[in-house]
Amino acid sequence: MRKKRDRVAVLGPEGTFTEIAARRIFKDVEFVYCDTVSAVFDSVSSGVEFGVVAIENSLEGSVNTTMDCLIDYDLKICNEVVLGINLCLVVVPGTKKEEIDTIISHPHALAQCRRFLSENFPDARLQRHESTAAAMEELKRLEGSAAIGPREAAKIYGLDVLFENIQDAESQTRFIVISKEAGTGRKTSIIFALKDEPGALYRALKEFAERDINLTKIESRPSKRKLGEYLFFVDLEGSLDDKEVKDALNSIKERTTFLKILGSYREDSYYSLR
Amino acid sequence: MRKKRDRVAVLGPEGTFTEIAARRIFKDVEFVYCDTVSAVFDSVSSGVEFGVVAIENSLEGSVNTTMDCLIDYDLKICNEVVLGINLCLVVVPGTKKEEIDTIISHPHALAQCRRFLSENFPDARLQRHESTAAAMEELKRLEGSAAIGPREAAKIYGLDVLFENIQDAESQTRFIVISKEAGTGRKTSIIFALKDEPGALYRALKEFAERDINLTKIESRPSKRKLGEYLFFVDLEGSLDDKEVKDALNSIKERTTFLKILGSYREDSYYSLR
Repeated sequence: MRKKRDRVAVLGPEGTFTEIAARRIFKDVEFVYCDTVSAVFDSVSSGVEFGVVAIENSLEGSVNTTMDCLIDYDLKICNEVVLGINLCLVVVPGTKKEEIDTIISHPHALAQCRRFLSENFPDARLQRHESTAAAMEELKRLEGSAAIGPREAAKIYGLDVLFENIQDAESQTRFIVISKEAGTGRKTSIIFALKDEPGALYRALKEFAERDINLTKIESRPSKRKLGEYLFFVDLEGSLDDKEVKDALNSIKERTTFLKILGSYREDSYYSLR
Repeated sequence: MRKKRDRVAVLGPEGTFTEIAARRIFKDVEFVYCDTVSAVFDSVSSGVEFGVVAIENSLEGSVNTTMDCLIDYDLKICNEVVLGINLCLVVVPGTKKEEIDTIISHPHALAQCRRFLSENFPDARLQRHESTAAAMEELKRLEGSAAIGPREAAKIYGLDVLFENIQDAESQTRFIVISKEAGTGRKTSIIFALKDEPGALYRALKEFAERDINLTKIESRPSKRKLGEYLFFVDLEGSLDDKEVKDALNSIKERTTFLKILGSYREDSYYSLR
């Protein structure tokens, strides 16, 4: 009897960058297409084996919903993938550049093409959509519109590519794999909030610095409770199995009002080659 | 002869939260209404005496465009205002709740009302606009639509308030005043990027901690050049005239690849009462 295939929840519909990233690590799986990033977290919480979500882009920065969900859901990060992003402006076959008055896409994709759009379509109305592929799917129902997204999706939805590589600069997006099960590897992600006292962050970072643990990412985000309160998202080089990492986290715990360990996983080689 | 009035550039049209914030500190001035946050920075660069822009909200976090413009433009922060935000759902008089199928507003305002919108208008189409007031101004041309924004703007545009205080939680927005001239006060804002070496942030923070300089904000943002490279936005307690602050900044300069001093200014008492 054939083994039951794992399911992987991704932002849908078919052809999103998230699915393209997921296919880099998952072979022979069943994709579950979700309408939103939170729906991906919901799916994994309720039994789908894995989920893939974008977490940051080199041009546009962090994906806020993903950061929020990492705080709220009880899930682990078990892998990561970094993808080079080629954004294409696509249309229903036959549509000419001059006819385009509306351009639809995911807000991050629109933002990554600011310069291209203001030079080529200064008067077009920009409309945001939940995903780049969803924007393409809707294109057939809209006259005089164009969508921005991956070439792969244009093929799926029978659209023509008018321009490609229209993002303002070279662009990479980092995706993470979420699951109920922890992974293993030389990279570890944590989130913490510090007690409100002078030098709190400095003393927390000291615990890592003194143990020669390198931080590859440190990003703060407002707690959304009050101005001036922050949550820190930290990626570090090392595994939760390492004694130094264990010791550092134990010491930091005493300085935090909140500490969440998202897990250890394998660093994407593309990322380390940056 | 009457003294020429100062001009203050704000996000327009009339009635935005930015204008409401600006009126808290500027009396008897001429407002210059701009379409976008970048246009406010452009106006001040080309001669308008002051500009007011939102920089962070307690629920939604930082305003990305403002952070980007602070990096790019050669302007100073000379004041700040913190405003409690009361978001209202408004309609053209006579429109009933059941008739609403589209809701338009600034993306941050839409995001701050996620819960209200999913409970009360689960099927409505959300459409983003450059400002809350611009959304209200457009409302008259759209049937079956509602806008989200300040009560003050509803009054200006002759609209009815259907619901008020619809944001997910208590919400404050911090606005900054930008100008070519530096201000004075007990709060100082800087931006820096660190050399890519282990413990770099820890050693930078040490310069402040050792001098008992308290940081009221530390926020990092991807450099938009490559993944893993960050810019740090730091607010500290102290003035550029203080010897300790001067010394700390001199020491940090050697550790940075980029250092921009945005200026000293008076802290809003609302903020410090948080």
